Amino acid sequence: MPQTVAAYAAYGQAEALKPFDVERRDLREEDVEIDILYCGVCHSDIHTVNNDWGGSSYPVVPGHEIVGKVARVGSAVTRFQVGQHVAVGCMVDSCRKCNFCERDLEQHCTSGFTGTYGGKDRVDGTTTYGGYSQKVVVADKFVLSMPEGLDLAAATPLLCAGITTYSPLRRFKCGPGKKVAVVGLGGLGHMALKLAHAMGAEVTLFTRSPGKEADARRLGASNVIISSDPEAMKAAANTFDLIVDTVPYDHDLNPYIATLNCVGTISVVGYLGPLGTTLNTAPLVFQSKGVVGSLIGGIAETQEMLDFCGEKKVVSDIEMIKMEEINVAYERMMKSDVKYRFVIDISSLNKN
Amino acid sequence: MPQTVAAYAAYGQAEALKPFDVERRDLREEDVEIDILYCGVCHSDIHTVNNDWGGSSYPVVPGHEIVGKVARVGSAVTRFQVGQHVAVGCMVDSCRKCNFCERDLEQHCTSGFTGTYGGKDRVDGTTTYGGYSQKVVVADKFVLSMPEGLDLAAATPLLCAGITTYSPLRRFKCGPGKKVAVVGLGGLGHMALKLAHAMGAEVTLFTRSPGKEADARRLGASNVIISSDPEAMKAAANTFDLIVDTVPYDHDLNPYIATLNCVGTISVVGYLGPLGTTLNTAPLVFQSKGVVGSLIGGIAETQEMLDFCGEKKVVSDIEMIKMEEINVAYERMMKSDVKYRFVIDISSLNKN
Repeated sequence: MPQTVAAYAAYGQAEALKPFDVERRDLREEDVEIDILYCGVCHSDIHTVNNDWGGSSYPVVPGHEIVGKVARVGSAVTRFQVGQHVAVGCMVDSCRKCNFCERDLEQHCTSGFTGTYGGKDRVDGTTTYGGYSQKVVVADKFVLSMPEGLDLAAATPLLCAGITTYSPLRRFKCGPGKKVAVVGLGGLGHMALKLAHAMGAEVTLFTRSPGKEADARRLGASNVIISSDPEAMKAAANTFDLIVDTVPYDHDLNPYIATLNCVGTISVVGYLGPLGTTLNTAPLVFQSKGVVGSLIGGIAETQEMLDFCGEKKVVSDIEMIKMEEINVAYERMMKSDVKYRFVIDISSLNKN
Repeated sequence: MPQTVAAYAAYGQAEALKPFDVERRDLREEDVEIDILYCGVCHSDIHTVNNDWGGSSYPVVPGHEIVGKVARVGSAVTRFQVGQHVAVGCMVDSCRKCNFCERDLEQHCTSGFTGTYGGKDRVDGTTTYGGYSQKVVVADKFVLSMPEGLDLAAATPLLCAGITTYSPLRRFKCGPGKKVAVVGLGGLGHMALKLAHAMGAEVTLFTRSPGKEADARRLGASNVIISSDPEAMKAAANTFDLIVDTVPYDHDLNPYIATLNCVGTISVVGYLGPLGTTLNTAPLVFQSKGVVGSLIGGIAETQEMLDFCGEKKVVSDIEMIKMEEINVAYERMMKSDVKYRFVIDISSLNKN
């Protein structure tokens, strides 16, 4: 039998979130029913509520940083037991057979992955609803195991902010002996600092705000460069093997490219859109440098990231909120007023 | 004793090349003296003669695609014998101890590699003179062995055009099962087609000129896309694993990026300068695509490339000229009137 559970939704574009009843499907053979404990609040949630990327269909129940406990499993599920702590990230399904799915890159599934919210279920065509909700039902292939010993609430943002920064750090060989810089200290940036540090790199933060230095050092940076200081930028020329650029608005990449060492990469994960400044290919060619985008990570890599964080005790710095505080949280996020991620305590969401 | 040998030089900026006597140094312990047989003519030669990149010091004796025969070896040289066919590319020395030199990336030597022409010898500070000359004396570490069985004149352009395209093809995993495109069919582009085909990829040429189709197919392309045809470009969306972009002037990268498949790379090797069009980061991020420059290749990789070409019988399509025809050749290159590389028969250069 389908179940009706309490949730919060935006009923229309840019509207405040309000209580909403979500119907969660009957368990299919491979489904896992999860009692949600915590759900992180990602900028994508706000973008989708506001229909910034187009294609939002309302009501929207956001939330794709989900940690919970297995309530029930379908008859074919062997990987998970009732009571186990599990997680769900940005994807709840994909075609599972294309070239990208076969290479564990479900985020690039040829027919498009099924988003945790605002997606279309591949079996019955219904709209998916995310983690601002008491329960979620997800195919086991897209359910992650939570490692032991992590604060579950603080681990929640690993499911999006964590994997988004972990994936380019791994792809471009962050590790001991490497110099890695992070641009921007927000939800993504603070995870990038922690992860790069945990991987053993020497980590630098680029920021426009001198006030962020102490926090950056606490989070794993051994250097902080004020990006608005031309002298400091010049002194950093040809330094970094990798830069993870988490800035979510248009900005000039050229000054950061100048701080890459030869054969280095700047991986853009924050800003999606046309660059307002001209990119110069000369340093790219003469120094074999690259500008490479990165989108979350595949399911296997997400599990690897969670296991790595379990081993290294890496979690986010969070501010816990009640479900009813979500609209205030959105307003504060728009002013970058959060250190560094809001996480909803789903126990605050009572059955309507 | 130093020797004086015949050469051709530009005596001043943008001047026509004329006969010039070059003094070649006494052999140091590790030096190889090479009787030059053929020298390819690269666009960099013209750029240096014209001082397009600044820093040219005259007279300039261009030429960094050099094939010849060992005439003498220094006392410490064991890798080469008199009479052996050898080659020299864009570099004749580097610091040999920095992080990049140790990783066989001498082209990115921290203190700058010593260019085959217009460089400064690291021992005596004299200006280096290139391959438009009867002889050259080069440290053995920077001398390549020519594989058996290749037409030596036609192999000459491998030393710059070959390695410039081979290196990104290898770095970004060109091979069987991969779809690789090449933008532009000039000296670099025609080598990229041949090399990508020899590596086993399915190869496509992007060109603005329908007239180039037959030649492209002969050189290894199985598809040709007219880049000015929006329908053809649209049909190629999300297709290529790798694009090698050899176009030497400013052009919009976005339409090519759209034809990359997810996780694909466009490697820029031709144009050095600011892009006149806005780069859009959205497809880079959403599809984990990259724009990555590439500069020639290291000495070990250049040897690997020569050995690969020996095995696969890959050489350039060339037009052989006499030394005295060099100024006409430059004029024709400026009009892209060469298929696909001029090579100077150095036997035409008589002792002045």
